[in-house]
Amino acid sequence: MASTDKPADPEYRSSSSSPAPVDYFKFDVILRFLLFAASVVAIVVMVTSEQTETILFNGFPLRRPAKFRYSPAFIYFVVAFSVSGLYSLISALASISVIKKPDLKLKFLLHFLFWDALVLGIIATATGAAGGVAYIGLKGNDHVGWQKVCKVYDKYCRHIAGSLAVALFGSVVAVLLIWLSAYSVHSRVPK
Amino acid sequence: MASTDKPADPEYRSSSSSPAPVDYFKFDVILRFLLFAASVVAIVVMVTSEQTETILFNGFPLRRPAKFRYSPAFIYFVVAFSVSGLYSLISALASISVIKKPDLKLKFLLHFLFWDALVLGIIATATGAAGGVAYIGLKGNDHVGWQKVCKVYDKYCRHIAGSLAVALFGSVVAVLLIWLSAYSVHSRVPK
Repeated sequence: MASTDKPADPEYRSSSSSPAPVDYFKFDVILRFLLFAASVVAIVVMVTSEQTETILFNGFPLRRPAKFRYSPAFIYFVVAFSVSGLYSLISALASISVIKKPDLKLKFLLHFLFWDALVLGIIATATGAAGGVAYIGLKGNDHVGWQKVCKVYDKYCRHIAGSLAVALFGSVVAVLLIWLSAYSVHSRVPK
Repeated sequence: MASTDKPADPEYRSSSSSPAPVDYFKFDVILRFLLFAASVVAIVVMVTSEQTETILFNGFPLRRPAKFRYSPAFIYFVVAFSVSGLYSLISALASISVIKKPDLKLKFLLHFLFWDALVLGIIATATGAAGGVAYIGLKGNDHVGWQKVCKVYDKYCRHIAGSLAVALFGSVVAVLLIWLSAYSVHSRVPK
Protein backbone atom coordinates (compact mmCIF):
# COMPACT_ATOMS: atom_id res chain seq x y z
CA MET A 1 0.00 0.00 0.00
CA ALA A 2 1.67 3.17 -1.14
CA SER A 3 1.31 6.33 0.87
CA THR A 4 -1.54 8.41 -0.50
CA ASP A 5 -1.69 11.40 1.80
CA LYS A 6 1.78 12.67 1.04
CA PRO A 7 3.25 14.65 -1.85
CA ALA A 8 4.89 12.49 -4.50
CA ASP A 9 8.33 11.60 -3.24
CA PRO A 10 9.95 8.87 -5.32
CA GLU A 11 13.08 8.85 -3.20
CA TYR A 12 11.20 8.35 0.07
CA ARG A 13 11.43 4.59 0.13
CA SER A 14 14.78 4.12 -1.52
CA SER A 15 16.67 6.76 0.40
CA SER A 16 16.08 8.40 3.72
CA SER A 17 18.08 11.48 2.77
CA SER A 18 14.92 13.03 1.31
CA PRO A 19 13.20 15.63 3.48
CA ALA A 20 10.47 14.45 5.85
CA PRO A 21 6.88 15.17 4.75
CA VAL A 22 6.36 17.55 7.64
CA ASP A 23 9.29 18.51 9.78
CA TYR A 24 8.45 18.64 13.47
CA PHE A 25 12.09 18.70 14.35
CA LYS A 26 12.26 22.39 15.20
CA PHE A 27 9.55 21.82 17.81
CA ASP A 28 11.79 19.14 19.29
CA VAL A 29 14.56 21.71 19.74
CA ILE A 30 12.12 24.25 21.19
CA LEU A 31 10.68 21.74 23.65
CA ARG A 32 14.15 20.70 24.80
CA PHE A 33 15.07 24.31 25.47
CA LEU A 34 11.75 24.78 27.29
CA LEU A 35 12.57 21.78 29.49
CA PHE A 36 16.01 23.26 30.14
CA ALA A 37 14.52 26.63 31.08
CA ALA A 38 11.90 24.99 33.33
CA SER A 39 14.58 22.91 35.08
CA VAL A 40 16.80 25.92 35.73
CA VAL A 41 13.91 28.08 36.99
CA ALA A 42 12.59 25.26 39.22
CA ILE A 43 16.04 24.76 40.78
CA VAL A 44 16.75 28.47 41.27
CA VAL A 45 13.35 29.23 42.81
CA MET A 46 13.64 26.19 45.09
CA VAL A 47 17.20 26.93 46.21
CA THR A 48 16.45 30.61 46.97
CA SER A 49 13.47 29.72 49.19
CA GLU A 50 15.28 30.35 52.48
CA GLN A 51 13.35 32.35 55.09
CA THR A 52 14.10 33.04 58.77
CA GLU A 53 11.21 33.81 61.11
CA THR A 54 10.80 34.39 64.83
CA ILE A 55 8.62 31.73 66.39
CA LEU A 56 7.56 31.20 69.99
CA PHE A 57 9.06 28.09 71.57
CA ASN A 58 7.84 27.43 75.14
CA GLY A 59 7.12 31.15 75.46
CA PHE A 60 10.54 32.25 74.25
CA PRO A 61 10.98 33.93 70.89
CA LEU A 62 13.34 31.92 68.71
CA ARG A 63 14.84 32.72 65.30
CA ARG A 64 14.33 29.63 63.12
CA PRO A 65 15.19 29.40 59.42
CA ALA A 66 13.34 27.31 56.84
CA LYS A 67 15.55 25.89 54.11
CA PHE A 68 14.82 23.63 51.20
CA ARG A 69 17.54 21.22 52.32
CA TYR A 70 15.68 20.47 55.54
CA SER A 71 13.48 18.15 53.48
CA PRO A 72 14.94 15.11 51.68
CA ALA A 73 12.12 15.37 49.11
CA PHE A 74 13.24 18.88 48.13
CA ILE A 75 16.87 17.72 47.88
CA TYR A 76 15.78 14.92 45.54
CA PHE A 77 13.78 17.53 43.61
CA VAL A 78 16.87 19.71 43.06
CA VAL A 79 19.01 16.70 42.07
CA ALA A 80 16.35 15.39 39.65
CA PHE A 81 15.94 18.74 37.93
CA SER A 82 19.71 19.18 37.75
CA VAL A 83 19.80 15.91 35.82
CA SER A 84 16.94 16.97 33.54
CA GLY A 85 18.47 20.42 33.03
CA LEU A 86 21.82 18.94 32.02
CA TYR A 87 20.16 16.30 29.85
CA SER A 88 17.85 18.76 28.09
CA LEU A 89 20.73 21.12 27.33
CA ILE A 90 22.88 18.33 25.87
CA SER A 91 19.99 16.85 23.90
CA ALA A 92 18.95 20.30 22.62
CA LEU A 93 22.47 20.90 21.30
CA ALA A 94 22.51 17.41 19.81
CA SER A 95 19.12 18.12 18.28
CA ILE A 96 20.44 21.31 16.66
CA SER A 97 23.50 19.48 15.36
CA VAL A 98 21.37 17.00 13.37
CA ILE A 99 18.75 19.49 12.18
CA LYS A 100 20.56 19.77 8.84
CA LYS A 101 21.05 16.02 8.49
CA PRO A 102 17.66 14.48 7.66
CA ASP A 103 18.98 10.92 7.47
CA LEU A 104 20.05 11.09 11.11
CA LYS A 105 16.88 12.70 12.47
CA LEU A 106 14.77 9.58 12.80
CA LYS A 107 17.57 7.67 14.51
CA PHE A 108 18.11 10.64 16.79
CA LEU A 109 14.44 10.84 17.77
CA LEU A 110 14.24 7.14 18.56
CA HIS A 111 17.43 7.09 20.61
CA PHE A 112 16.47 10.14 22.59
CA LEU A 113 12.99 8.70 23.17
CA PHE A 114 14.68 6.21 25.55
CA TRP A 115 16.27 8.98 27.59
CA ASP A 116 13.20 11.20 27.42
CA ALA A 117 11.13 8.46 29.05
CA LEU A 118 13.73 7.98 31.79
CA VAL A 119 13.99 11.72 32.48
CA LEU A 120 10.18 11.98 32.55
CA GLY A 121 10.13 9.23 35.19
CA ILE A 122 12.78 10.99 37.28
CA ILE A 123 11.28 14.50 37.21
CA ALA A 124 7.70 13.25 37.64
CA THR A 125 8.61 11.33 40.83
CA ALA A 126 10.55 14.37 42.08
CA THR A 127 7.62 16.71 41.38
CA GLY A 128 5.29 14.27 43.14
CA ALA A 129 7.55 13.86 46.17
CA ALA A 130 8.08 17.61 46.61
CA GLY A 131 4.37 18.23 45.99
CA GLY A 132 3.35 15.66 48.61
CA VAL A 133 5.62 17.22 51.24
CA ALA A 134 4.62 20.78 50.29
CA TYR A 135 0.96 19.86 50.64
CA ILE A 136 1.57 18.73 54.22
CA GLY A 137 3.39 22.01 54.84
CA LEU A 138 0.39 23.90 53.49
CA LYS A 139 -2.48 21.96 55.04
CA GLY A 140 -0.82 19.97 57.81
CA ASN A 141 -2.17 16.57 58.82
CA ASP A 142 -4.27 16.48 61.97
CA HIS A 143 -4.40 12.69 62.13
CA VAL A 144 -0.70 12.39 62.88
CA GLY A 145 -0.22 15.86 64.39
CA TRP A 146 1.89 17.36 61.59
CA GLN A 147 1.46 21.12 61.76
CA LYS A 148 1.15 23.62 58.94
CA VAL A 149 4.29 25.62 58.30
CA CYS A 150 3.10 27.95 55.55
CA LYS A 151 1.32 30.32 57.94
CA VAL A 152 4.68 31.29 59.43
CA TYR A 153 6.99 30.73 56.46
CA ASP A 154 4.89 32.46 53.79
CA LYS A 155 7.70 33.54 51.46
CA TYR A 156 9.33 30.10 51.75
CA CYS A 157 6.06 28.42 50.76
CA ARG A 158 5.50 30.77 47.85
CA HIS A 159 8.92 29.81 46.53
CA ILE A 160 8.16 26.10 46.90
CA ALA A 161 4.77 26.55 45.20
CA GLY A 162 6.31 28.51 42.31
CA SER A 163 9.04 25.94 41.89
CA LEU A 164 6.46 23.13 41.88
CA ALA A 165 4.34 24.89 39.24
CA VAL A 166 7.37 25.24 36.96
CA ALA A 167 8.32 21.61 37.69
CA LEU A 168 4.86 20.43 36.69
CA PHE A 169 5.19 22.43 33.48
CA GLY A 170 8.57 20.73 32.90
CA SER A 171 6.98 17.30 33.36
CA VAL A 172 4.29 18.17 30.81
CA VAL A 173 7.02 19.29 28.39
CA ALA A 174 8.75 15.91 28.90
CA VAL A 175 5.49 14.11 28.01
CA LEU A 176 5.10 16.36 24.95
CA LEU A 177 8.68 15.50 23.89
CA ILE A 178 7.78 11.80 23.88
CA TRP A 179 4.54 12.54 22.02
CA LEU A 180 6.37 14.63 19.42
CA SER A 181 9.00 11.94 18.87
CA ALA A 182 6.30 9.28 18.50
CA TYR A 183 4.32 11.48 16.10
CA SER A 184 7.38 12.36 14.00
CA VAL A 185 8.33 8.70 13.74
CA HIS A 186 4.72 7.84 12.96
CA SER A 187 4.63 10.25 10.03
CA ARG A 188 7.80 8.73 8.54
CA VAL A 189 6.96 5.06 8.92
CA PRO A 190 5.69 3.48 5.68
CA LYS A 191 1.92 3.00 5.82
CA MET B 1 20.70 3.37 1.48
CA ALA B 2 19.11 -0.07 1.51
CA SER B 3 18.94 -2.09 4.68
CA THR B 4 21.85 -4.48 4.85
CA ASP B 5 21.50 -6.12 8.23
CA LYS B 6 18.16 -7.79 7.57
CA PRO B 7 17.15 -10.94 5.69
CA ALA B 8 16.03 -10.30 2.14
CA ASP B 9 12.44 -9.17 2.26
CA PRO B 10 11.24 -7.83 -1.06
CA GLU B 11 7.79 -7.06 0.30
CA TYR B 12 9.09 -5.03 3.23
CA ARG B 13 8.97 -1.70 1.51
CA SER B 14 5.96 -2.23 -0.69
CA SER B 15 3.66 -3.78 1.89
CA SER B 16 3.58 -3.66 5.64
CA SER B 17 1.75 -6.98 5.87
CA SER B 18 5.07 -8.81 5.87
CA PRO B 19 6.23 -10.08 9.25
CA ALA B 20 8.47 -7.81 11.31
CA PRO B 21 12.15 -8.79 11.42
CA VAL B 22 11.95 -9.55 15.14
CA ASP B 23 8.60 -9.51 16.86
CA TYR B 24 8.74 -7.85 20.26
CA PHE B 25 5.00 -7.66 20.41
CA LYS B 26 4.51 -10.50 22.86
CA PHE B 27 6.73 -8.64 25.33
CA ASP B 28 4.39 -5.70 24.93
CA VAL B 29 1.46 -7.87 26.04
CA ILE B 30 3.50 -9.30 28.93
CA LEU B 31 4.59 -5.83 30.11
CA ARG B 32 1.01 -4.54 29.99
CA PHE B 33 -0.19 -7.44 32.12
CA LEU B 34 2.74 -6.83 34.50
CA LEU B 35 1.67 -3.19 34.83
CA PHE B 36 -1.90 -4.33 35.46
CA ALA B 37 -0.74 -6.79 38.15
CA ALA B 38 1.50 -4.17 39.77
CA SER B 39 -1.35 -1.61 39.82
CA VAL B 40 -3.79 -4.06 41.42
CA VAL B 41 -1.27 -5.22 44.04
CA ALA B 42 -0.23 -1.63 44.86
CA ILE B 43 -3.87 -0.60 45.36
CA VAL B 44 -4.83 -3.66 47.43
CA VAL B 45 -1.79 -3.44 49.71
CA MET B 46 -2.35 0.32 50.17
CA VAL B 47 -6.08 0.01 50.86
CA THR B 48 -5.63 -2.82 53.40
CA SER B 49 -3.07 -0.85 55.41
CA GLU B 50 -5.46 0.08 58.24
CA GLN B 51 -4.12 -0.34 61.79
CA THR B 52 -5.53 0.76 65.14
CA GLU B 53 -3.15 1.34 68.04
CA THR B 54 -3.42 2.61 71.60
CA ILE B 55 -1.44 5.80 72.06
CA LEU B 56 -1.01 8.02 75.10
CA PHE B 57 -2.61 11.43 74.70
CA ASN B 58 -2.04 13.77 77.69
CA GLY B 59 -1.54 10.70 79.88
CA PHE B 60 -4.75 8.97 78.75
CA PRO B 61 -4.66 5.89 76.57
CA LEU B 62 -6.50 6.50 73.31
CA ARG B 63 -7.39 4.11 70.47
CA ARG B 64 -6.37 5.83 67.23
CA PRO B 65 -6.55 4.23 63.78
CA ALA B 66 -4.18 4.91 60.89
CA LYS B 67 -5.81 4.76 57.46
CA PHE B 68 -4.47 5.40 54.00
CA ARG B 69 -7.26 7.94 53.35
CA TYR B 70 -5.94 10.21 56.10
CA SER B 71 -3.31 11.37 53.60
CA PRO B 72 -4.29 13.11 50.34
CA ALA B 73 -1.09 11.79 48.76
CA PHE B 74 -2.17 8.19 49.40
CA ILE B 75 -5.64 8.91 47.98
CA TYR B 76 -4.03 10.31 44.83
CA PHE B 77 -1.83 7.19 44.76
CA VAL B 78 -4.86 4.89 44.77
CA VAL B 79 -6.66 6.96 42.11
CA ALA B 80 -3.57 7.08 39.87
CA PHE B 81 -3.01 3.33 40.06
CA SER B 82 -6.70 2.69 39.43
CA VAL B 83 -6.29 4.64 36.21
CA SER B 84 -3.12 2.76 35.25
CA GLY B 85 -4.70 -0.59 36.18
CA LEU B 86 -7.74 0.07 34.00
CA TYR B 87 -5.60 1.44 31.17
CA SER B 88 -3.12 -1.45 31.24
CA LEU B 89 -5.94 -4.02 31.19
CA ILE B 90 -7.67 -2.37 28.23
CA SER B 91 -4.40 -1.86 26.34
CA ALA B 92 -3.30 -5.45 27.07
CA LEU B 93 -6.55 -6.77 25.58
CA ALA B 94 -6.17 -4.41 22.62
CA SER B 95 -2.59 -5.61 22.26
CA ILE B 96 -3.74 -9.26 22.15
CA SER B 97 -6.42 -8.40 19.59
CA VAL B 98 -3.86 -7.07 17.09
CA ILE B 99 -1.17 -9.70 17.72
CA LYS B 100 -2.34 -11.63 14.65
CA LYS B 101 -2.58 -8.51 12.48
CA PRO B 102 0.97 -7.42 11.65
CA ASP B 103 -0.14 -4.44 9.56
CA LEU B 104 -1.87 -2.89 12.57
CA LYS B 105 0.92 -3.51 15.07
CA LEU B 106 3.07 -0.51 14.28
CA LYS B 107 0.09 1.83 14.33
CA PHE B 108 -0.99 0.29 17.61
CA LEU B 109 2.44 0.75 19.20
CA LEU B 110 2.66 4.38 18.15
CA HIS B 111 -0.84 5.25 19.31
CA PHE B 112 -0.39 3.58 22.66
CA LEU B 113 2.98 5.27 23.08
CA PHE B 114 1.02 8.50 23.66
CA TRP B 115 -1.04 6.98 26.43
CA ASP B 116 1.91 5.09 27.90
CA ALA B 117 3.77 8.38 28.37
CA LEU B 118 0.75 9.98 30.03
CA VAL B 119 0.21 7.00 32.36
CA LEU B 120 3.92 6.98 33.22
CA GLY B 121 3.63 10.66 34.20
CA ILE B 122 0.58 9.98 36.38
CA ILE B 123 1.91 6.94 38.25
CA ALA B 124 5.41 8.40 38.65
CA THR B 125 4.04 11.56 40.33
CA ALA B 126 1.76 9.39 42.50
CA THR B 127 4.66 7.15 43.54
CA GLY B 128 6.74 10.22 44.31
CA ALA B 129 4.00 11.94 46.33
CA ALA B 130 3.23 8.81 48.38
CA GLY B 131 6.96 8.15 48.80
CA GLY B 132 7.61 11.69 50.02
CA VAL B 133 4.85 11.46 52.63
CA ALA B 134 5.84 7.93 53.68
CA TYR B 135 9.43 9.08 54.19
CA ILE B 136 8.24 11.74 56.63
CA GLY B 137 6.20 9.06 58.40
CA LEU B 138 9.30 6.90 58.68
CA LYS B 139 11.93 9.49 59.59
CA GLY B 140 9.89 12.47 60.72
CA ASN B 141 11.19 16.00 60.23
CA ASP B 142 12.72 17.66 63.28
CA HIS B 143 12.98 21.07 61.65
CA VAL B 144 9.21 21.53 61.49
CA GLY B 145 8.31 19.18 64.36
CA TRP B 146 6.69 16.44 62.28
CA GLN B 147 6.91 13.23 64.30
CA LYS B 148 7.60 9.72 63.11
CA VAL B 149 4.53 7.50 62.96
CA CYS B 150 6.07 4.20 61.89
CA LYS B 151 7.30 3.33 65.39
CA VAL B 152 3.69 3.04 66.54
CA TYR B 153 1.96 2.02 63.32
CA ASP B 154 4.43 -0.66 62.21
CA LYS B 155 2.03 -2.86 60.22
CA TYR B 156 0.55 0.23 58.54
CA CYS B 157 3.99 1.39 57.46
CA ARG B 158 4.97 -2.06 56.18
CA HIS B 159 1.87 -2.00 53.97
CA ILE B 160 2.72 1.47 52.67
CA ALA B 161 6.33 0.44 52.01
CA GLY B 162 5.25 -2.73 50.19
CA SER B 163 2.75 -0.79 48.11
CA LEU B 164 5.41 1.78 47.22
CA ALA B 165 7.89 -0.92 46.17
CA VAL B 166 5.29 -2.45 43.83
CA ALA B 167 4.39 1.04 42.57
CA LEU B 168 8.03 1.75 41.76
CA PHE B 169 8.19 -1.54 39.88
CA GLY B 170 5.05 -0.48 37.98
CA SER B 171 6.68 2.83 37.03
CA VAL B 172 9.75 0.98 35.73
CA VAL B 173 7.44 -1.28 33.69
CA ALA B 174 5.81 1.85 32.20
CA VAL B 175 9.25 3.16 31.18
CA LEU B 176 10.08 -0.26 29.68
CA LEU B 177 6.80 -0.17 27.71
CA ILE B 178 7.85 3.11 26.09
CA TRP B 179 11.34 1.73 25.44
CA LEU B 180 9.92 -1.42 23.86
CA SER B 181 7.54 0.56 21.62
CA ALA B 182 10.38 2.83 20.53
CA TYR B 183 12.65 -0.14 19.87
CA SER B 184 9.98 -2.05 17.94
CA VAL B 185 9.27 0.99 15.79
CA HIS B 186 13.00 1.54 15.36
CA SER B 187 13.50 -1.98 14.02
CA ARG B 188 10.72 -1.47 11.43
CA VAL B 189 11.66 1.96 10.17
CA PRO B 190 13.58 1.84 6.87
CA LYS B 191 17.25 2.53 7.44
